[in-house]
Parts: sequence; C-alpha cells; structure tokens
Amino acid sequence: MELTNIREIFRNKDKFADKEVTIGGWVRSNRNSKNFGFIVVNDGTFFEPIQVVYGNGLDNYDEVGKINVGAAIIVRGTLVLTPDAKQPFEIQAAEVTVEGASTPDYPLQKKRHTFEYLRTISHLRPRTNTFEAVFRVRSLCAYAIHKFFQERDFVYVHTPLITGSDCEGAGEMFQVTTLDLNNLPMTEEGKVDFSKDFFNKPTNLTVSGQLNGETYAMAFKNIYTFGPTFRAENSNTTRHAAEFWMIEPEIAFADLEDDMMLAESMLKYVISYVLENAPEEMAFFNNFVDKGLLDRLRNVVENDFARVTYTEAIDILSKHNDKFDYKVSWGCDLQTEHERYLTEQIYKRPVFVTDYPKEIKAFYMKLNDDGKTVAAVDCLVPGIGEIIGGSQREDDYDKLLARINELGLSEDDYKFYLDLRKYGSARHAGFGLGFERCVMYLTGMGNIRDVIPFPRTVNNCEL
Amino acid sequence: MELTNIREIFRNKDKFADKEVTIGGWVRSNRNSKNFGFIVVNDGTFFEPIQVVYGNGLDNYDEVGKINVGAAIIVRGTLVLTPDAKQPFEIQAAEVTVEGASTPDYPLQKKRHTFEYLRTISHLRPRTNTFEAVFRVRSLCAYAIHKFFQERDFVYVHTPLITGSDCEGAGEMFQVTTLDLNNLPMTEEGKVDFSKDFFNKPTNLTVSGQLNGETYAMAFKNIYTFGPTFRAENSNTTRHAAEFWMIEPEIAFADLEDDMMLAESMLKYVISYVLENAPEEMAFFNNFVDKGLLDRLRNVVENDFARVTYTEAIDILSKHNDKFDYKVSWGCDLQTEHERYLTEQIYKRPVFVTDYPKEIKAFYMKLNDDGKTVAAVDCLVPGIGEIIGGSQREDDYDKLLARINELGLSEDDYKFYLDLRKYGSARHAGFGLGFERCVMYLTGMGNIRDVIPFPRTVNNCEL
Repeated sequence: MELTNIREIFRNKDKFADKEVTIGGWVRSNRNSKNFGFIVVNDGTFFEPIQVVYGNGLDNYDEVGKINVGAAIIVRGTLVLTPDAKQPFEIQAAEVTVEGASTPDYPLQKKRHTFEYLRTISHLRPRTNTFEAVFRVRSLCAYAIHKFFQERDFVYVHTPLITGSDCEGAGEMFQVTTLDLNNLPMTEEGKVDFSKDFFNKPTNLTVSGQLNGETYAMAFKNIYTFGPTFRAENSNTTRHAAEFWMIEPEIAFADLEDDMMLAESMLKYVISYVLENAPEEMAFFNNFVDKGLLDRLRNVVENDFARVTYTEAIDILSKHNDKFDYKVSWGCDLQTEHERYLTEQIYKRPVFVTDYPKEIKAFYMKLNDDGKTVAAVDCLVPGIGEIIGGSQREDDYDKLLARINELGLSEDDYKFYLDLRKYGSARHAGFGLGFERCVMYLTGMGNIRDVIPFPRTVNNCEL
Repeated sequence: MELTNIREIFRNKDKFADKEVTIGGWVRSNRNSKNFGFIVVNDGTFFEPIQVVYGNGLDNYDEVGKINVGAAIIVRGTLVLTPDAKQPFEIQAAEVTVEGASTPDYPLQKKRHTFEYLRTISHLRPRTNTFEAVFRVRSLCAYAIHKFFQERDFVYVHTPLITGSDCEGAGEMFQVTTLDLNNLPMTEEGKVDFSKDFFNKPTNLTVSGQLNGETYAMAFKNIYTFGPTFRAENSNTTRHAAEFWMIEPEIAFADLEDDMMLAESMLKYVISYVLENAPEEMAFFNNFVDKGLLDRLRNVVENDFARVTYTEAIDILSKHNDKFDYKVSWGCDLQTEHERYLTEQIYKRPVFVTDYPKEIKAFYMKLNDDGKTVAAVDCLVPGIGEIIGGSQREDDYDKLLARINELGLSEDDYKFYLDLRKYGSARHAGFGLGFERCVMYLTGMGNIRDVIPFPRTVNNCEL
C-alpha cells in the first residue's frame, strides 16, 4: 500500500506542505462537534502523533465521529503547516477509512496506566507513549552496538544457546531436554538415561558465550557476540530476568587497558547514537521518567571515565562503612550499594574498578604479578551500578591448568579452551555488557520487566 | 597494544608504503634458508595474509626460523610494495617476537583438511581459509540485514526464546525446566507437577517469534526479529540444525504484494552488501567452493524475481512428473526436488510461489476469496529451494477464530493474538528467512554444520 510514514512527514515537513498525503495508523483520541472533529493518529514510525482535522463535508462524517480509540484508520488529506499551533502541522482530511475498528472497552484509553497494569497486557503496551519510546530506543541501541563493532571490523559471532557445558559454574541453569518427563527412560542404576535424550547427554541453556567467543577471537582477532543468555536464579528483583541479551566482545593482542578503552568508547558511541536518533523519545524520558537523564548521559559522553583499583576502592568505601548495610573490607565482593556509592557519590560519573581478589572472580581471569589479584574490571555507572564486567584472560597454559585443577573443574571439559593457550596463545581480553541494563541506563526505566518486550522471570512466562 | 590491522594495510597500502608498521597475528607458514626466511601471517582481520621477510640480521634469527605453524607473533618492520610479485607488498622485519608458541603437532598444518575433520575441531577451524571466509561473510550478512531494516525505520524486536506456547503447533520442541529430573515432583494424579517448575508451568524453546512479532507490528507498523530458533526434529540432513537463527519481519498496512517486494529488496540488498564488503572471500568461494556463485548472485541482484501461483506451479511441474520421486498434484506440499526444479530448471532465478491450499499452510494465513487457498508465499532460490516463507495474516477476527476452532487449537492460548484483530486490526504480512540458509546461499557451502560456529544437531552438542 502506498502510505507515507509519519516519521517522513515530521522529518521533511516542507516537502509535504500543501501536498496530498495518505497515512495509516491507530487512533489515540477522537473528539468532535457538529461540524468538525479531530483525530490524533500514531502510526508507530514516529514518537509524535499527527492531528487529523475532519469536517462534515466527509460523506461518512457521522461514522468517523464514532471511531473508537485504538481503531486502525487510513487518512487521505492535505498536509497544512500550522506555525502558530502547538503541533507543527495537521492533515485536513479528504477521506477517512476505517481499516479495523476498535471497541469502547479498548484497554488503552487516553489516561495514565501503571506500569504494573501494562505488564499484564504486554501485547498492547507498545501502543502507549512510554513503551513505544522504550522499545524504539531498545532497537536503536541494539543497532548502535552492531554499528560500533562492524565499523571497527569486529566479526559478529553467534555462540550457541544450547550447551553441554557450564561456562563459569556460575548461576543456576535451565535444562533442555526432549525426554518425556512423565515417562523418563532410566539406566540400570536407576538414573535418568540421557543417552536417550536429543543430544545424547544432559544439556543446558547458556549463561555466557565468552569461552566460545574466545576461540573465535584467536582466529579473527576482534569479535563480538550479541545474543540471549539465561539464568535460572530465583531472584525476584527489578534488575534480574531469566532471559536477557548480552554483548560479549573479545579482543586478541590486547590487555586490560585495551579492554577498558573499548568499553568506554562503545558506551559513549551508543549513548551518542541514541541521543541523535531518538531525540523525541529521550526528551520524553527526561521529562516524565527520569529528570536529569539527558544531563547525565551528556556528561558521560563528554568526560573520561574514572579509574580505581579494587584495593583503592575498598580504602575509600571503608571510610563510609556507616552508610552501608554490608560493611566492606578487602576480599569482599562489592554489593550494589557500594558500587552505586562509588559511581554516584565519589566519582559522579562512570568508573572502572580493576584488579579484584582472585577468590571472588572467575577462573579464567589473568593472575596479576602480586599473585593475589586478577586483571578484572567492572564498569559502574550512576543509577545502575555494574553495567559491564570484563577481564584480561589467563593466556598461560600452565597457570590456567593449575587454576582449573585448583577449583576442581574438569580438565577434559576445558580441553578446547586450553588448546587456545597451546596453539598460538595471545594476550586477550573481553567484557560482557548486559543489554537490558544498558537500555535501562539509557531510558531511566527502573524495572527490567519494562525494557523487555515479553519478560521471563520467576513464575512468569506469558505470551 | 598499538598494532595495525592487516585489513588496514591492504585497504590503504600507499599510506603505509615504506613506513614502519607493527602487526600481530598467527603464523600460516614459515620457511627459511641460511640467511633469510619468509613467514606468512594472518591476523584474522583480512582474508589475505601478509608475507614477512626476515634476515639473519635479526638477533633471534635462529629462534624465528623455528617458529611453528599456528604460533602468535608480533612483527615490527617496514612495509615494502612489491609490484612485480604475486602479493602486493611484504613486511621486511626489524623485529619478530613470539607472543605465544605453537607445537609441531598443531592440528592445522598447511594442507587440505576435509570439512568433516574440521567439524571435530570447531574451536580451531575458523583459522582456516574456508571458515575464516564463511564466518566473516556470516557476520557481514547479519549486519546487512540489520542495516537494511534500520535504514527503513523498522523496529528490531527481541521476541522471547523460552515460551509457554507452541506457535504453529509445527515441529517438535525442546522442553525447558529447572526440575531435578532424577527426583521429579509429582501431583496426586501421578503426573509431573509443573507448578514446582521455574515458570510454574511447562515451557519450551520457541520455534518462531512471529506471533509475538505481530503484536509489535500492530504498534510500530514495521518491525523485524532476528534471533535464535529451535527445532527438536530428528532429521540428520545437510540443511537442518536444532538451533538456528531466523529473521522475521512483519509489516502492517501491507499485503502479500508488499511482503514480496520487501523480501526481494532485502535479499538483493544483502547480496550486494556482501559482494561489496567481502570481495576476497566471495572470489574464494567462487573459485574453490561453488563455481559460478558470483554469476548466479549477480544475476539475482540484477533481475526481477519470477512469480507463479501454486496452482500454476502444479500445472507446470505435473508435466515433468517423470523426473520426480514424489509426483505432484494439486493439494500436495512441494518437496525440495520440486522447488529446485522450478527455480533451477524452469525460471533459472529466484521465484515466488503464492496462494497455497489452506490445508498445507498455517492457521494464521489469510484466506483468499476462492475459499480454498491462502495468501502465502514461498521464495525459492537455485541451489537451495525454499529460503523464505511468508504470508499475509488473517486480520478478520471471526475468520481467525473459526480457523482456530476448526483446527482444535485453544482459543484461550490465542486470546492475545485475537485481540490484535479486535482492537484496530490492519492488513499485515510478514515472512521468515532462515539465516543459515541465507549464508549457505551466499557462500555456496553445502552443509549447514559448516556455516554455524558451533552447530547443534541430533546427538551433537560439542563445545
């Protein structure tokens, strides 16, 4: 069908002025008197809707007057600039056709709905201002990430979702099976016989593509992953989902310093891209969701991130122990309250915390010369806390093997990973960015359920 | 580390000529005599490797001479143009440092390996020419798809992977659970008690994001998904994987004609993008994997796709029934042999087949006026057969509900989907593109296992 997107009209209004246009979209409101009426139409291509003016010259004036909120309509008319009005232009309708009616009980009437209520109608909520803005920004944010890496010749790698291994031993995992649970095949020992399962063994949903990603970094030098990741944690918070997307770049011939530079430029790039490509949405978030958002984001783009070692951070934080539920001391893991204090109160901007005690970090991180800490880095941002976690990887075969044995991991499971240190090992580093946390950070939205189209959390797997 | 990517040198050789450069990469070959030697280095950023010449002026000349294939090295030297040689330039080394050694039993010696063998070392195979080319093209192809849709203001939607529903009732599904299979909770009736499971009910891995995608198309007008999809089919073919990626655009205020135009321009765009951005890789495929590939792809870009209705196609094919294992007649589903005959023998280019009998297509497809066929379309391409399947969706509430009941589907499961036809229904259409089939088509690779970094197939879930 030959329709003009409302986005095009807003972006090139002079081109369309006084010309006939035809648009299709959904009715946000409809009010009228005896002789004329106004319909506000949104077609989803642009955050702002367009106002359609219709008069009793229309053959179907009475019918148009009764169009319900939510209906899909097609409007042919003349675009008229209205420099003195609130909206920059309107369409004076020559023809209004109902494409699909709506009903008076349409769940999204023109009034404020709570986010809680809107979560119960996840198939309709993208038709509201807030969620239209959220999910367009989510889309732009995803694209900005691809664009950033592709412009730098990184290779995008699809690491597997179903896996026979447990990357970090971290996080509870979802099992994947085709066995009939009501009629499980058993071995002679009375255990489930996984040799009858689809993959001939037990399998899970991945918690990270990093180890697979590393194998490709040792071939392509610079790679990134961008795909779904799963955690079967029974945590019902505003920041945890069972299914979320993650970006995991991995760079070879690179150390922790290169890793931090990459993370910083990526975040700045993504913020700049979204500010530039969704100005209307970002102004909306700034006005109605998170006052000060725009200032904060511009501040991030324009300034260097702060840097502090874990040991220094503990020194600083321990002077404020009276403010924390969990008191800090060297060796402890940082809680969100500590992370936020550092980035919000001490530095008032994003901060990289580096060189954590090896005991609280994963086995694959490179041991520093002190023998106590590893070349890990977390990036903390105001309002969120940790948004990125990364490290330089242990590239020494013997040290890695020792660590695997020390932790009681299976050497056999990690043979492929050890191979990377046997055949042309190279310094390399990478990080993981939780995509939803990134979208929360960019929009100011406070609940991860409100930045995922169809969120999956404990006891919740609707639609 | 301040290294120059080999890609940059190849793309801007005059800029680097006679200058000092430092590169890091992996040794493909090393041969030498008493006074000088040659190392071929690939850093993964570019398909072509670079030749390093080293002389006995190096302090570590003997050590360099013994560097094994597969080792990671850093080379500092002068880039010298060699207009009379096979390669356009070489690096005359001032310094060669071993970053990580390799061993004489490195599995990828400079000789031909079978694809079958390389599948057993999926963590190393991207270091070979063929797989370096495949996975760079895969990355570019993914990006081209995003770029195509984003340039047209489509919103990228992440539809869920874990689902409580079965989109089309099509294909066997993987179950997802956190229950302890060796100790399952049971109800009083002796069945598995899924109320104890993570999501409080049985869940599966998605086979399609389409229905979820439709809900967003009715908000944003034009959307696309790009994510993993799963089939637990026990089919051990060269074209089926248990885990693969799919692209599913959905467009509102659009019919089957719009859908076909979108599919055709998307395929042409992606082919053009890859031809332009990976000329070396594509020439390699054309020479060593699939002679005639480039001609075929250019032919696709330059010509309109053919169009034929299912009914016409059956007429045509039935005249050649002697050539087929399965004889065709109206009402039968098209097999790969028929699809390939149509696109390869009859049309010799991509062809859209439209308007299939409703019995062999999914419940959500729009019924044509004849009452017998639906507004479905498959796009068939030479060498592959079906690469895209799409349809206009049934947008009439009553007709859709009747079809759901006719097929014995649960009205309650599809309440959200019916809502889209109740509140502002609009003509809409979409299609699904199997990403791996697209990569196979672009590269000429014949086995889906060779275009997925870590393929998952029956009895195979390695790394």
